[in-house]
Amino acid sequence: MFQSRTHTCNELRIEHVGQQVTLVGWMENVREVGGNLAFVILRDFYGTTQVVVETEDMMKLVKSINKESTIRVEGIVRERDSKNPKLSTGDIEVLPSKIEVLGRCRYHELPFPINRSREADEAARLKYRYLDLRNPAVKGNIVLRCQVVAALRQAMTDHGFLEITTPILTASSPEGARDYLVPARNHPGKFYALPQAPQQFKQLLMASGFDRYFQIAPCFRDEDARADRSPGEFYQLDMEMAFATQEDVFAVLEDVLPPIFAKYGKYHTASSAPFTRIPFAQAMDTYGSDKPDLRIDLTAVDATALLADCGFGPFEGSVVKAVPVTNFTATRKQIDKLCADVEVQSGGKVYWFRLDEKGELVGGISKFLQDRKEAVTAALGLKPNTFVGLTAGKKLAAQKTAGVLIKMLPALAPEHMDKERYAFCWITDFPMYEIGEESGELEFCHNPFSMPIGELEILEKAHRGEVDPLTIMAYQYDLVCNGVELSSGAVRNHDPEIMIRAFELVRLGEEDVKAKFPAMYNAFCYGAPPHAGIAPGVDRMVMLLAGEDSIREIIPFPMNKNAQDLMMDAPSTVSQKQLDELHIALVEPEA
Amino acid sequence: MFQSRTHTCNELRIEHVGQQVTLVGWMENVREVGGNLAFVILRDFYGTTQVVVETEDMMKLVKSINKESTIRVEGIVRERDSKNPKLSTGDIEVLPSKIEVLGRCRYHELPFPINRSREADEAARLKYRYLDLRNPAVKGNIVLRCQVVAALRQAMTDHGFLEITTPILTASSPEGARDYLVPARNHPGKFYALPQAPQQFKQLLMASGFDRYFQIAPCFRDEDARADRSPGEFYQLDMEMAFATQEDVFAVLEDVLPPIFAKYGKYHTASSAPFTRIPFAQAMDTYGSDKPDLRIDLTAVDATALLADCGFGPFEGSVVKAVPVTNFTATRKQIDKLCADVEVQSGGKVYWFRLDEKGELVGGISKFLQDRKEAVTAALGLKPNTFVGLTAGKKLAAQKTAGVLIKMLPALAPEHMDKERYAFCWITDFPMYEIGEESGELEFCHNPFSMPIGELEILEKAHRGEVDPLTIMAYQYDLVCNGVELSSGAVRNHDPEIMIRAFELVRLGEEDVKAKFPAMYNAFCYGAPPHAGIAPGVDRMVMLLAGEDSIREIIPFPMNKNAQDLMMDAPSTVSQKQLDELHIALVEPEA
Repeated sequence: MFQSRTHTCNELRIEHVGQQVTLVGWMENVREVGGNLAFVILRDFYGTTQVVVETEDMMKLVKSINKESTIRVEGIVRERDSKNPKLSTGDIEVLPSKIEVLGRCRYHELPFPINRSREADEAARLKYRYLDLRNPAVKGNIVLRCQVVAALRQAMTDHGFLEITTPILTASSPEGARDYLVPARNHPGKFYALPQAPQQFKQLLMASGFDRYFQIAPCFRDEDARADRSPGEFYQLDMEMAFATQEDVFAVLEDVLPPIFAKYGKYHTASSAPFTRIPFAQAMDTYGSDKPDLRIDLTAVDATALLADCGFGPFEGSVVKAVPVTNFTATRKQIDKLCADVEVQSGGKVYWFRLDEKGELVGGISKFLQDRKEAVTAALGLKPNTFVGLTAGKKLAAQKTAGVLIKMLPALAPEHMDKERYAFCWITDFPMYEIGEESGELEFCHNPFSMPIGELEILEKAHRGEVDPLTIMAYQYDLVCNGVELSSGAVRNHDPEIMIRAFELVRLGEEDVKAKFPAMYNAFCYGAPPHAGIAPGVDRMVMLLAGEDSIREIIPFPMNKNAQDLMMDAPSTVSQKQLDELHIALVEPEA
Repeated sequence: MFQSRTHTCNELRIEHVGQQVTLVGWMENVREVGGNLAFVILRDFYGTTQVVVETEDMMKLVKSINKESTIRVEGIVRERDSKNPKLSTGDIEVLPSKIEVLGRCRYHELPFPINRSREADEAARLKYRYLDLRNPAVKGNIVLRCQVVAALRQAMTDHGFLEITTPILTASSPEGARDYLVPARNHPGKFYALPQAPQQFKQLLMASGFDRYFQIAPCFRDEDARADRSPGEFYQLDMEMAFATQEDVFAVLEDVLPPIFAKYGKYHTASSAPFTRIPFAQAMDTYGSDKPDLRIDLTAVDATALLADCGFGPFEGSVVKAVPVTNFTATRKQIDKLCADVEVQSGGKVYWFRLDEKGELVGGISKFLQDRKEAVTAALGLKPNTFVGLTAGKKLAAQKTAGVLIKMLPALAPEHMDKERYAFCWITDFPMYEIGEESGELEFCHNPFSMPIGELEILEKAHRGEVDPLTIMAYQYDLVCNGVELSSGAVRNHDPEIMIRAFELVRLGEEDVKAKFPAMYNAFCYGAPPHAGIAPGVDRMVMLLAGEDSIREIIPFPMNKNAQDLMMDAPSTVSQKQLDELHIALVEPEA
């Protein structure tokens, strides 16, 4: 089964003792313990095995080989005197009769020690990624990624989805980000664009009669790097279903994701179906966020009626949100740091008071509340040893600051977070329209191509003035896990007539619809099925599962933050001939 | 399980009679057979079901809906009076109680009839690909492709290979074709290249310690279209194995491909392991081709000694190849046409004679052979009713013309081709070096990075003049199926020292090696395993399996031959702002 060897470096056990074996791998380390005694660690993809050198000739040979050379070892398996129970091959060692160099490492010194590569400078790691990846801890994340992707594919296939590959050289898509462009040699002055997402193609597949589509889809956005998004390319589990509703999409992912998260994740527990569903407005109100982390049991309570008139200046005329935290034992210093940290992240101030162990209101702004102690205690359901964080301002600002506070509080009150699990939820019922900050007029909120809840009827009512357009919701939903947004999805607007009426509410018309997605609009005029989909980010899911904070840890060959591949030296200059063939010229950037 | 319906359009059988059902799909056809009687064909991804309209109201409704609209039908399943055994749902029909339009088709006339879209103009098919794909025959090829890709993935995973995704935005690769370039916004004057193949990355993965890699890999070459290669992107089953030999690669594909070809192919028989292995020189000699179609039992025999001096002018001083064909009954007119067709394709002439039913040499150049009839009959093993095709010229030309002749002969002699199967073979032992046609000096034949057979030793001998470099072979191999080259592969040269010696034979050195693949060369200097791989073309395999001659039939959204996506209008013009951000300007092509 395994080429050029009898066993891998993770295969020999006590029952192999006495066997003649051949192993291959990298000479990871040589530990000399005497003139004629050394322990060699041989490493391959599967694990490590100890080889014991006991003769002068073998010692001389081993000392002539640089570490990280690849070698072939023939020898006899022997039981170890002192076994290593932490190692799967720790019961045995191999006594070599022959060691042969297969690929010599030219250097005595490496840019960094393989097994400590994660401590090295990132630029060095990326330049020598092939050495970094030899570190089992680094490799492990990539193997995890491959396993997760394979499991996602299998689960989607098991659910009757067909993986269809859509074009990479295509037209500009209106996802709103910047396109990567590719000059078209045979069409001077024209460019392909790399897809920001296969959104149009998957909707065209629905109009083409496909029923359940998915794809582990490469997506390309020419945006600057973020911690959770690599510059250049990223992957999503893109899916779409014909004749489907929001519930159908929910049912598929609620079935597909939890077993994969539980199996491959750092935490081995995941929400089971159905996931908690939280309308957008309620999420903002209760969690101060449309990405709530449901592992945290804290919520924000509206305390406006209770506290706005208490005499504390910042509360006057403001919306006030209260976040009570029971069994709170942090120090004053910790509380001050928390308030400062929340302000840095949210831009809003946090106020607070405590109900101490004796049931007294103490600390923070407590003096403003003494006159209404009973009302406060009753309304917030306070018990002794409870901390109450408070935020105030316009409604959205007070909510958002409370949201940041909720996410930061478990650091001081760990019992309020059941950390070791994957808690999924759906955020639903996003508004279709909003008043534009700049224009002051009605605009689309997110995606103009989502189906409004109420479809044509609600739009007609809005046109007739019977319904406020700001109250129209869309069949649009976010999938959130542990406070991380994995994806937005929607029931699409598949009906050209409803599309046009939706656009007319924001003073646009059929020509604007056509201009935005010409192929899709044309296709929908030939009879399209209702359809819905979503596209959870693969990179983000793998980050959650691996417990990594940098996206570069879960990509085999990542670019750096500056969108460079330091190993391959990309991007790089090209020849004048290449430019000429593409009918383009370079323009010197302005100084 | 299936959203918005109780059953798909391929699910209802006689046992469902009497049930209340809901179906959804496209209204494919309406056949009116009376004032109040019509048969409606409802089509979804899975099949078709007949709906019978029997009331005036329902008739009016159906007549108001354009064909290809999507509809929902609620009704009762009824046994048909006249069953259709060709249709899986042919035993039943649905009597509707309600029909609802889900997505209206605006048009009475379509660009082409859905079920006859393959007869339409290709430009129309590509522009309205979403209508073309509604044709079950067109859709079927795409479904086949998806199934084949899924089966390949599964088989590779079952063989212990890990699918690893390599970068798409990367550096120019030296595959020899033209790169697609992507201007780098943050690096004025610099460009990414789309990978022509993940060749460097897969070799870097080997140097990184991965053991068995594969990928259904998108590849990009900016070359003009061919029948078997779409412009732009294509896919290959890219694979590589560490510590592996040619035999290891052969064993994997001999295990992976035949079951998939037998299961999904138009022909349900495929070669079993081991595939026939034919050294390159022998393939040229015996089949006149390095892509022999082993379904044909004809071979070329060297007849130089036998015929060069027979007095027929074109044979004088030439290599002569003979292709005997037993039980040959074609007419003189057919033979003349065959000779003309071979000449058009190969550029070489075909001569011939026959041994007739009485054992006489007749026709063609037979008069030149009468004096040596017995020798000819004996040497070629001729029996009555045998046709002998002859080619002559320099060795390679005579071989190649014979090769074309062999591939064309079965049209006139069908018993010499066992057509309905997939016949695989390996072509091995390609020469490492050749004398360049232009330079007249020693050059690399194919891939300078394949391992020479004999490794360092044979190169040193060549350097010392003990071995003719032209006799050095490489561990390089082609996988051929039914006369189609699916892929080249090789044992790679993983040793910088051997690489440099190989380059020195063609008057190059370390700097040239480095310049060609800098990252890979650097990686190999840090200890690389011997490794080998191959990358069979997915598109070509699916074409063989589907029995299609145009690659556009097996790609969901293909570009046309001119590298345009007519549906999406790609490539297209971009804004000046986009050009400015990328620091490029357009250059007017010269008139």
